[in-house]
Amino acid sequence: MLHDNIGIGESGHLTFAGQDTVALCEQYGTPLMLLDENRVRGNMSVYVNAMKKHFTGDSHPLLASKALCFKGIYKIAAEEGMFTDIVSAGELYVAKSAGFPMENAFFHGSNKSDAAISMAMDMGLGWFIVDNREELDEINRQAGERGFVQNILLRLTPGIDPHTHAKINTGRVDSKFGTAIETGQAEELIAYALSLNNVALHGFHCHIGSQIFEIEPFCDAADIMLAFMAHIQKTYCVKLKYLNLGGGFGVRYVEDDPVIDYEKNIAEIASHLRAKSAECGIEMPDILMEPGRSIVADAGMTLYTVGSVKTITGYKSYVSIDGGMTDNPRYALYGSRYTVHNADHADREADFVCTIAGCCCESGDLIQEDIAIAKPVRGEHIAVCVTGAYNYAMSSNYNKIPRPPIVMLKDGQSRIAVRRETFADLIAYDAE
Amino acid sequence: MLHDNIGIGESGHLTFAGQDTVALCEQYGTPLMLLDENRVRGNMSVYVNAMKKHFTGDSHPLLASKALCFKGIYKIAAEEGMFTDIVSAGELYVAKSAGFPMENAFFHGSNKSDAAISMAMDMGLGWFIVDNREELDEINRQAGERGFVQNILLRLTPGIDPHTHAKINTGRVDSKFGTAIETGQAEELIAYALSLNNVALHGFHCHIGSQIFEIEPFCDAADIMLAFMAHIQKTYCVKLKYLNLGGGFGVRYVEDDPVIDYEKNIAEIASHLRAKSAECGIEMPDILMEPGRSIVADAGMTLYTVGSVKTITGYKSYVSIDGGMTDNPRYALYGSRYTVHNADHADREADFVCTIAGCCCESGDLIQEDIAIAKPVRGEHIAVCVTGAYNYAMSSNYNKIPRPPIVMLKDGQSRIAVRRETFADLIAYDAE
Repeated sequence: MLHDNIGIGESGHLTFAGQDTVALCEQYGTPLMLLDENRVRGNMSVYVNAMKKHFTGDSHPLLASKALCFKGIYKIAAEEGMFTDIVSAGELYVAKSAGFPMENAFFHGSNKSDAAISMAMDMGLGWFIVDNREELDEINRQAGERGFVQNILLRLTPGIDPHTHAKINTGRVDSKFGTAIETGQAEELIAYALSLNNVALHGFHCHIGSQIFEIEPFCDAADIMLAFMAHIQKTYCVKLKYLNLGGGFGVRYVEDDPVIDYEKNIAEIASHLRAKSAECGIEMPDILMEPGRSIVADAGMTLYTVGSVKTITGYKSYVSIDGGMTDNPRYALYGSRYTVHNADHADREADFVCTIAGCCCESGDLIQEDIAIAKPVRGEHIAVCVTGAYNYAMSSNYNKIPRPPIVMLKDGQSRIAVRRETFADLIAYDAE
Repeated sequence: MLHDNIGIGESGHLTFAGQDTVALCEQYGTPLMLLDENRVRGNMSVYVNAMKKHFTGDSHPLLASKALCFKGIYKIAAEEGMFTDIVSAGELYVAKSAGFPMENAFFHGSNKSDAAISMAMDMGLGWFIVDNREELDEINRQAGERGFVQNILLRLTPGIDPHTHAKINTGRVDSKFGTAIETGQAEELIAYALSLNNVALHGFHCHIGSQIFEIEPFCDAADIMLAFMAHIQKTYCVKLKYLNLGGGFGVRYVEDDPVIDYEKNIAEIASHLRAKSAECGIEMPDILMEPGRSIVADAGMTLYTVGSVKTITGYKSYVSIDGGMTDNPRYALYGSRYTVHNADHADREADFVCTIAGCCCESGDLIQEDIAIAKPVRGEHIAVCVTGAYNYAMSSNYNKIPRPPIVMLKDGQSRIAVRRETFADLIAYDAE
């Protein structure tokens, strides 16, 4: 199986985190989003431990909230010693509501409104990662009004193209995010930030993209960032504490994706950073990383019920399910690949080539095309693996389809972490 | 201006339905979805009147719920004499809650669960548009259990490629929807449906795609459907009352899209259908059409507040707004084109070429690339035109961004039809 939390039970049913997925469908209904809590905690502790071991004192992995954001995930992150990055006022609100220590939160995003900045300061947010001049001014103004100095990092673009999908490639110079080193605009903004009284600049952030399977792009970005940090520290006589390398480690979605040893990657990046820092004549900065996807992706699985199996003579076959782009728009958006099973007959040969079609009235609502599964019939269940990241997070009510629940699995037990949306919820905001 | 409900006020502000959009932003906040009620009603009456005038007695336009579904739209549709098509249990629930007469509703979708079929029958739904054999069996079974005969149409694929975007092209033989005429599978399913005791087959549905600007694809599809109806009526000695031609009339999103005369299109299609029916030796069937997009699209406008304006020297400029793919994922999904204005300075020359970037932490979160607007500053407002269809309907809480309200404009007044989502709503389903 793709990951070791996926298996086949005695009944031939697919299991996840050791539990019978078909029984879970019967208990909770479909579509159903499962989350393996021990896997989430295990993934977090890989990062927490590896970063403690290989980096300097105040280095931390930050949970990238946007991959999957609900109260429970912040509670687990806090317990596991993760810090977090947050990209909106809404995420701030969820983290705060979950009791997450806001001094360990970094506020990201390319558009922080005046109201969001004020809300973050009210909550005692630790760090702003400043994207642009306008919000730098506003943060400085509001901190001044409150009579304190706000800690900040600046988001910079190192100009690295990690040869990944254009839509999830954000480290290039031409990006909506951050300020470019190459054009001289980053240094201009830094000089300006250093001139302000109510912000304290402590370092830089960069993010080169997502689903990256080699460490070279990270090392290349780090080289640019460290050299630039050395230049800034010398030129402006400042000490920069943090380098935030962003997210991007790949996740194994299908059998031909490589198996990734995150601990080894972190160790190698650390050794590279140490050497490069020495070469640049600076102290190795404390490192922050934002592994959102690789914390939650393989802890997730989505289950659906089959409505019909249609073979168009001379063309192809469609298996229709009771969810789709409303709970997982990643195939529609990016053509993302997924591993799919017939959950009722995971022990049978996967010899039926078909397209898994979502239930939305939209041709593009597909989960995967031309994959092989054991042939199902109406009422059986389809499992889509590795759906923990950017599935529930991106879900919608298109076609007025209620969003699924998130059911947490742990040590043979299951519990509802986010309840299923009801029909009544769908009109809760509507005027009479 | 693109449509005659968009204008420029004395202050230089953009107006919509005669109202100052900047004032509306101040009153309701941003992102803000506006809906011009008179335009919705006007669009509906174009279809209702043209279909009354040009088609036979029981012909109707059906509101395609999926383009924009909230209680208010069904109330307006009922008042204007529209029937409706519905694609899910959730849409059934909203229509019923709004008091829509369910005998005038047609239940679509490629995956109707047992529960949804039961719910529809409980509500007294008029018509099922049956997609596949499995749901045909279930509808027949449940109708039998209740002791009545359910009226149905069958969804067929005529095999027309209207040369539109692959993702919104659904009339081809290779489709997740319906049953193909070309392969003989449609006739098989029809013969089977006619053998069942608790369903009454009254006609066929086809849908060839969306955003179609010529009537030829509709006429081509109608030719295939009418010839096939003639064949079925003769072979099986049945009378088929309805031909549902689906949706698909294009909408003018940008200046170089043609201006569309829907009334003329309907008249021409009617005249084509009459001639073709005569040629096939059958009575002209009653016609159903499903104009979802062209009812609501140009009645919608979305307003945003600018957070930053960033020019990357030697590359390009980004204007960041406080919404994006969360309220309008159509550019991310399809690269859809839109007309954009600086709402504060609609009277100024549009000479600033920029990319409108959404506030999500995702590079692909763009609303439009390389368009020209009057250069804005933080705090000014961006208007995206013709957002009534498939914007709010597809909206999500990605990055935990609350969904905007829908504010209806009518005769100089405004009112909230769907309220803004609050931060508290974002955790309403989360367990403690």
